[in-house]
Amino acid sequence: MLHLVIAEAELELVPRTIRDHPAVVNYAKRRGKRPDEVLLDSTYHHAALKKLSDGERRGRPDIVHICLLNALESIANKEGKLRVYVHTRNDEVIYIKPETRIPRNYNRFVGLMESLFRDRAVPKNLELLRMEEKSLVELVEEINPDEIFVMHEDGNAVKPSEFGKILSGLRNPVVIVGGFPHGDFRSETPWERISLYDAPLMAWTVVNEVIISFEHWIF
Amino acid sequence: MLHLVIAEAELELVPRTIRDHPAVVNYAKRRGKRPDEVLLDSTYHHAALKKLSDGERRGRPDIVHICLLNALESIANKEGKLRVYVHTRNDEVIYIKPETRIPRNYNRFVGLMESLFRDRAVPKNLELLRMEEKSLVELVEEINPDEIFVMHEDGNAVKPSEFGKILSGLRNPVVIVGGFPHGDFRSETPWERISLYDAPLMAWTVVNEVIISFEHWIF
Repeated sequence: MLHLVIAEAELELVPRTIRDHPAVVNYAKRRGKRPDEVLLDSTYHHAALKKLSDGERRGRPDIVHICLLNALESIANKEGKLRVYVHTRNDEVIYIKPETRIPRNYNRFVGLMESLFRDRAVPKNLELLRMEEKSLVELVEEINPDEIFVMHEDGNAVKPSEFGKILSGLRNPVVIVGGFPHGDFRSETPWERISLYDAPLMAWTVVNEVIISFEHWIF
Repeated sequence: MLHLVIAEAELELVPRTIRDHPAVVNYAKRRGKRPDEVLLDSTYHHAALKKLSDGERRGRPDIVHICLLNALESIANKEGKLRVYVHTRNDEVIYIKPETRIPRNYNRFVGLMESLFRDRAVPKNLELLRMEEKSLVELVEEINPDEIFVMHEDGNAVKPSEFGKILSGLRNPVVIVGGFPHGDFRSETPWERISLYDAPLMAWTVVNEVIISFEHWIF
């Protein structure tokens, strides 16, 4: 089973310090919600983000959305060989049941994530998505993998196909992909670093490369 | 060079016959546009779509968006080995320059497509995206490929990795992926049919499988 972690994902509710910023207030009003109920989104809160530390990389639910659509609709997931987790910048972990059908529409996905932050599980009866406070290290320990890899621009260069072969030979590998637009992990990732390409790749590109290269060796 | 065609994509402006439907009128007003300027979108025009033929599959710009984000951010595209085209249900073809950075945000993507339908090229100076009236057969003839494959549930079963090998041995293959949510191609696709998996796959999953399997044999 391949365990894929989208780590330090830029997924959070609007932080308290900018909830009274006009960009946030107007956005929330337009959506019929309170400022403390809406996801931070760089497309709409650009002006407010300038007032936050790391503002240039925060508010990217779109990255999580695309990674999840790709991972959950992959052949590996349909074959029961994949588990997907989202770890956020604020050390929350989202557990996702493999049969989950993530909304295709971005705005619906945002609404779903807002419900998840409020209720900690959605839908309440099925709990297809469940959120817990947990660090990346704690999540990795809980998975209890035989190997842990961090996908990283400065990692050891390994061709995607070769990396897939390595993964296919393991029992329970964890692969960590940064869920942020650019820059480095902010917290410790004391594991083997792997680079699939000699230039930066989008998070969802790495997700696709890892999953499909893994599939090639097991199906 | 691999030529990837997202074909019969469910991408269109709101058709004339439902432009006065309340679901459309309210949606356009909310976005500050006229009903004839906005994309058909099943998330928002559900009630109006019931009045259209094929209404249950139309209005899916999200499928095009995800396919393009995956294809254009792929290693194959960065290496100059990929060309991507979108062919719509109304026989328009969108030509996309490989260096195009598609908006990550869905709502911005929708705005960009609306500009494209209006102006036939965006941005006007660079023409990263350009739209022409053209059928799928005409597009394929223009590409002048050595082989043409249609990805299809009922096609010949070929493993993704094997299919990648076949593609890598050709000079200018065309691979056609249906840009609709379910059902069959509506028009003639008189080419070899290939099935990568024994159950239906999302369009973007097929796009990922084709591109990455192709990459494995050329890099």
